[in-house]
Amino acid sequence: MGRWEPNARGRLAQAALELYIEHGFEQTTVAKITERAGLTERTFFRHFADKREVLFAGTGTMLDHCVSAVAEAPDAATPMEMIAAALDAMATEFQGRAELIRQRQAVIEAHPELRERELIKLATWAAALTDAMRRRGVDALTAHLTAETGIAVLKVAFARWITEAESGQRPLAQLIGECLDRLGTVTASR
Amino acid sequence: MGRWEPNARGRLAQAALELYIEHGFEQTTVAKITERAGLTERTFFRHFADKREVLFAGTGTMLDHCVSAVAEAPDAATPMEMIAAALDAMATEFQGRAELIRQRQAVIEAHPELRERELIKLATWAAALTDAMRRRGVDALTAHLTAETGIAVLKVAFARWITEAESGQRPLAQLIGECLDRLGTVTASR
Repeated sequence: MGRWEPNARGRLAQAALELYIEHGFEQTTVAKITERAGLTERTFFRHFADKREVLFAGTGTMLDHCVSAVAEAPDAATPMEMIAAALDAMATEFQGRAELIRQRQAVIEAHPELRERELIKLATWAAALTDAMRRRGVDALTAHLTAETGIAVLKVAFARWITEAESGQRPLAQLIGECLDRLGTVTASR
Repeated sequence: MGRWEPNARGRLAQAALELYIEHGFEQTTVAKITERAGLTERTFFRHFADKREVLFAGTGTMLDHCVSAVAEAPDAATPMEMIAAALDAMATEFQGRAELIRQRQAVIEAHPELRERELIKLATWAAALTDAMRRRGVDALTAHLTAETGIAVLKVAFARWITEAESGQRPLAQLIGECLDRLGTVTASR
């Protein structure tokens, strides 16, 4: 192991994002990322498998918080309330990082292979939330359906939040709440 | 153009799927697919960009039918009823092809790059259904939310349908109906 580098992971992620925005994802090499971060390539590869992976740093931590929110929801919580708690936990993670997340999303949207990776991430989240609800005694069909619906709500709320990022932006938690309310209205009229 | 080959597209798709199951996706070359189908490579590449694409033949037609179902839903249809009509149209496409679809899905699940392609397909469907509802005068938020929720329902119903494929299988339309009912119950309890 090399000497300890304070917040190497965060510095690499920040440098990578800056370079992807300035020069494009394809044009950015790992060498350029480490140069800007003032770190070695060896350090880079201790933290990330490749330059695609850098954009998804922190994803695991975020999912852990969502799964914990389901596990720690009150005993009387309904499946929808468990998912609402998970989405709230996610919104908390995003708070105060809007500009960074907006820039990251712009890079992802511009590259099919990154967009695919993003969709795989969401599918993984749906599976993890399904499992978390199963552990709370929710039946298999309800757990799967509620988790997938929660991810659908997240997608819609997140898309609105990103679009609003440049003008006066409302908190993601508020947009998620609005989407959950609207979902209730929509599903009631059938 | 070569001479006309009756149902070349279908024969190529069938041959490809058989070979993917027998020998694996990686081991199957375009040459082997065309040999089994009794067609030339030139014919293959007139129909498909690559061997991955073969598994997604028919996807466009299926989406067209779903979009048409939204367009042709009764004037009084609610957004959820429009989406239910779209999912019904999809279920009709799948009917009587359960074994083929189950085999196709097994190949897809076994290969991350095919799974990514499948997720991209579903994202494209959500976008197309959103647009179709917008053209019916549904507001942007409701359209996006209902479309994404519809895809969530499809994912869950489809997963159950695939799992049931080997035992006595219920029609996909019935499973979709059950999921829509359950969604109504789940969203009402929050």
